[in-house]
Amino acid sequence: MEQPNEAWGMERLDRQIAFIMEIDRLKTVLRRTLITGGSRRENTAEHSWHIALMAMALHEHAVDPKPDLNHTIKLLLVHDIVEIDAGDTFAYDSQGYADKEEREQAAADRIFGLLPEDQAASLMALWREFEDMETPEAVFAAAIDRIQPMLHNYYSEGFSWKENGVRLAQALKRVEFVEQTSPVLASFINELLHRAADKGYLKG
Amino acid sequence: MEQPNEAWGMERLDRQIAFIMEIDRLKTVLRRTLITGGSRRENTAEHSWHIALMAMALHEHAVDPKPDLNHTIKLLLVHDIVEIDAGDTFAYDSQGYADKEEREQAAADRIFGLLPEDQAASLMALWREFEDMETPEAVFAAAIDRIQPMLHNYYSEGFSWKENGVRLAQALKRVEFVEQTSPVLASFINELLHRAADKGYLKG
Repeated sequence: MEQPNEAWGMERLDRQIAFIMEIDRLKTVLRRTLITGGSRRENTAEHSWHIALMAMALHEHAVDPKPDLNHTIKLLLVHDIVEIDAGDTFAYDSQGYADKEEREQAAADRIFGLLPEDQAASLMALWREFEDMETPEAVFAAAIDRIQPMLHNYYSEGFSWKENGVRLAQALKRVEFVEQTSPVLASFINELLHRAADKGYLKG
Repeated sequence: MEQPNEAWGMERLDRQIAFIMEIDRLKTVLRRTLITGGSRRENTAEHSWHIALMAMALHEHAVDPKPDLNHTIKLLLVHDIVEIDAGDTFAYDSQGYADKEEREQAAADRIFGLLPEDQAASLMALWREFEDMETPEAVFAAAIDRIQPMLHNYYSEGFSWKENGVRLAQALKRVEFVEQTSPVLASFINELLHRAADKGYLKG
């Protein structure tokens, strides 16, 4: 296969096309959860699309300081691109978390660095903002990003929870912060996790 | 598997969750093009993510009336959801196009209709806007949506072009309108298609 760093006669465009072809690889990064129907694991690219739509559908439940929806969508679309190099670190994998930051920083440098400098800096800033979870948009985006796999797990009878022996208390802890951005969503996800434990999808 | 129309104690939230679980099925709708590496066909959910990122990377090349990037991203994220019911209609399939509109309208009614009425109307409007190609955002979004599979085809040595015997003139016609929204991208995609024909990926 030909290299996508071919020249198209404009330096910025060449870099943008190289970036666009590179991020295609996010479609082959697999997550732990199954897609609806259970036919296969979800990949990170389609996950990123799904959470952007989820943010659109659930934005009304976010409270003041109300996150800007457009900015939230951008955070969600960009934040997982580093997984192309760094892989998906499972939420309950404390070993994987040890060097997660270092691996992801190197990935961000390389992948966003394919773009012209101003654009690289702007995508890097979105990724950092998501990771730091300090703005209303980053907190709301993180809430959506954590609720989505729980929905998948619930509707696949706890597939990846069972596979990894996840306990109710661990799952509850992952979404403790949701209360800050949305009491409605916090109450929903708590109820869902408790029902999951009652059904045996999560260990008590 | 349990039905995702379960009650969570708030009518709007129940409908939103049902919608969120339903659109997960876009991950199983396959397109004609291969992902990078050629391991499998691309699905429509990951395609939607990819074109949203492409719009971010290439927005600077859009000319006046400059499309709003945030609105373009929403059009791109939403416009293919109807394929859950209507399937992906191949760009060069004139038979499939005969009843495309009818099939997609029924799909939009059903799928967006899972949401509360105000949200259903708002997503329906985004989908319609994309289809009508009359706003600057819809034209730019359509340009991105058509260029993306051509990039994939080019870098997979014309896989789905060859499979379907697509001719250079047909491909050029698909992107004729790109000039309206971006002379830079129009010139790029024309060059790419001519190079593709020279290499034998497209029939002359």
